[in-house]
Amino acid sequence: MINIGVDLGGTTIKMALINEEGKMIDKWVIATNTIDNGKHIASEISKSILKKIRQFGLETSSVHGVGVGAPGFINLDTGFIYQAVNIGWKDYPFKAELEQLLGLPVIVDNDANMAALGEMWLGAGQGTRNLICVTLGTGVGAGIICDGKILHGVSGMAGEIGHITVIPRDGAACNCGKTGCLETVSSATGIRRMALDALDYIDSESILRTMFETKGDITAEDVFDCAERQDPLSSTVTEKAAYYLGYALGALAVTVNPEKIVIGGGVSHAGDALVKPLKKYFRHFSLPKIADSCSIDLAKLGNDAGVFGAAWLCMQK
Amino acid sequence: MINIGVDLGGTTIKMALINEEGKMIDKWVIATNTIDNGKHIASEISKSILKKIRQFGLETSSVHGVGVGAPGFINLDTGFIYQAVNIGWKDYPFKAELEQLLGLPVIVDNDANMAALGEMWLGAGQGTRNLICVTLGTGVGAGIICDGKILHGVSGMAGEIGHITVIPRDGAACNCGKTGCLETVSSATGIRRMALDALDYIDSESILRTMFETKGDITAEDVFDCAERQDPLSSTVTEKAAYYLGYALGALAVTVNPEKIVIGGGVSHAGDALVKPLKKYFRHFSLPKIADSCSIDLAKLGNDAGVFGAAWLCMQK
Repeated sequence: MINIGVDLGGTTIKMALINEEGKMIDKWVIATNTIDNGKHIASEISKSILKKIRQFGLETSSVHGVGVGAPGFINLDTGFIYQAVNIGWKDYPFKAELEQLLGLPVIVDNDANMAALGEMWLGAGQGTRNLICVTLGTGVGAGIICDGKILHGVSGMAGEIGHITVIPRDGAACNCGKTGCLETVSSATGIRRMALDALDYIDSESILRTMFETKGDITAEDVFDCAERQDPLSSTVTEKAAYYLGYALGALAVTVNPEKIVIGGGVSHAGDALVKPLKKYFRHFSLPKIADSCSIDLAKLGNDAGVFGAAWLCMQK
Repeated sequence: MINIGVDLGGTTIKMALINEEGKMIDKWVIATNTIDNGKHIASEISKSILKKIRQFGLETSSVHGVGVGAPGFINLDTGFIYQAVNIGWKDYPFKAELEQLLGLPVIVDNDANMAALGEMWLGAGQGTRNLICVTLGTGVGAGIICDGKILHGVSGMAGEIGHITVIPRDGAACNCGKTGCLETVSSATGIRRMALDALDYIDSESILRTMFETKGDITAEDVFDCAERQDPLSSTVTEKAAYYLGYALGALAVTVNPEKIVIGGGVSHAGDALVKPLKKYFRHFSLPKIADSCSIDLAKLGNDAGVFGAAWLCMQK
């Protein structure tokens, strides 16, 4: 049987045909059509999938189902999207509409959760049923898997770890309306902001400063590049991002006692520059017994984690 | 069918016969015999239960099983106790031994988890399947229930929220070896310590000071009493305990998105003096949507929560 994984983002929709052994038979991408508050998205996904099924000479009876990782605030039982700001959806019965269009069972979950399931099935989380998969991108999110099951909470908002307060007083403003959230310091956006602050406050010469003066801006990626080239200012900023992430993950670990923490998303490309200090601070803020039974690794599936997880979730239903 | 709940503590063992509707038919207490590293405990529990079964004219065939809430570090699958310092056990196959003595199925879990299950079944958590039950006593612990199931983690240590770091720098030393743990500020011990500190640092007259000078010591209970009588120093200390608890529970809530947080243990007797500021700080450190769908209430079952939860867990197996 074939499962179809869909990773619905604000600019692209990634899709893949995946068999039960986890072999990706094909993957393809379409643009996210946000015209008319995203009302064409379901039919465009449906058309694209049905075309692909024909193209591969498959019967719909040999397709087990379609799993979709979606952003926003979702009712997980009904696949009803309360709100997905980037896409334009509001109070939209996405699952029901897509099922009708496709004539196939559809399952919808949060994109961070799908990525976590993907890493558990075929990536850095293979072999464990107690896993936290952290995505460090523009924001910070997590899929938390306990005893093999995604932790959803009462309204599907579990894993919003980007909004753990790590600076209780005088922290930077967060999109959520609070201040001092993890997302304000350990996301790509947060790292860029801290680096710009550091350039303002610290007068010393630095390759990061030269980069900033040449390009007129810097990215989190630039900060990591410079840190790798032993730029002290960049190392300080990276260390700070790792400190706060280690602090939050320490609290998370004494709460859910995971066997593995997987770090994914764009910021994870920093690699050792981030992970080495992260491990140090994680241990500092966790209990020894809990830290001993928890490893921290980089994600393995990159942008494919979401479609793999979505396919896996289909298979379970 | 009858279920037997056992709450095994360092000084007493509480036991109860409980029917499937949650009616407590009888409860009784025996002392915890810690002589010879606790090797007589299992046989004393067994004798006491079998005697009670005879006394009520029950057949063992009408007893569904025995649930035991135990302290320490437990393998939940096998009921093997790695270590329970207060009792003296180390590498002890408690469940196997008790099953052999009783001829009845036994299920063992952490005492904080049993209390959470009890509150979910018959107490302040009735009607929800997503619940955090916090025990504020000498230490701080929690039972976390997600989708009706206790969160155990990979080595049974989930819910050790007393060791969430709430003061990252220059916090007081904790029993665990770290500093600045929630337990150092929001437990009975922590509140007493903070109050003694405040008496040292602040010169003003206070009814807490008079109490301290009369008795030569104070308890957390004294601090709450004085706070209720509008003693400013005691109110400051209570507010501080509530602040840190609200901070930690805010992080917990964005992680697991609970429907209810139940506050139990001796410190919960502070009632509104604690809960009112706690609710304020919890909301401050949580996401609005998550705080909106989460209520905070005082525990209802007091010392009986553990035996009720243990009986309930029997019933599920």
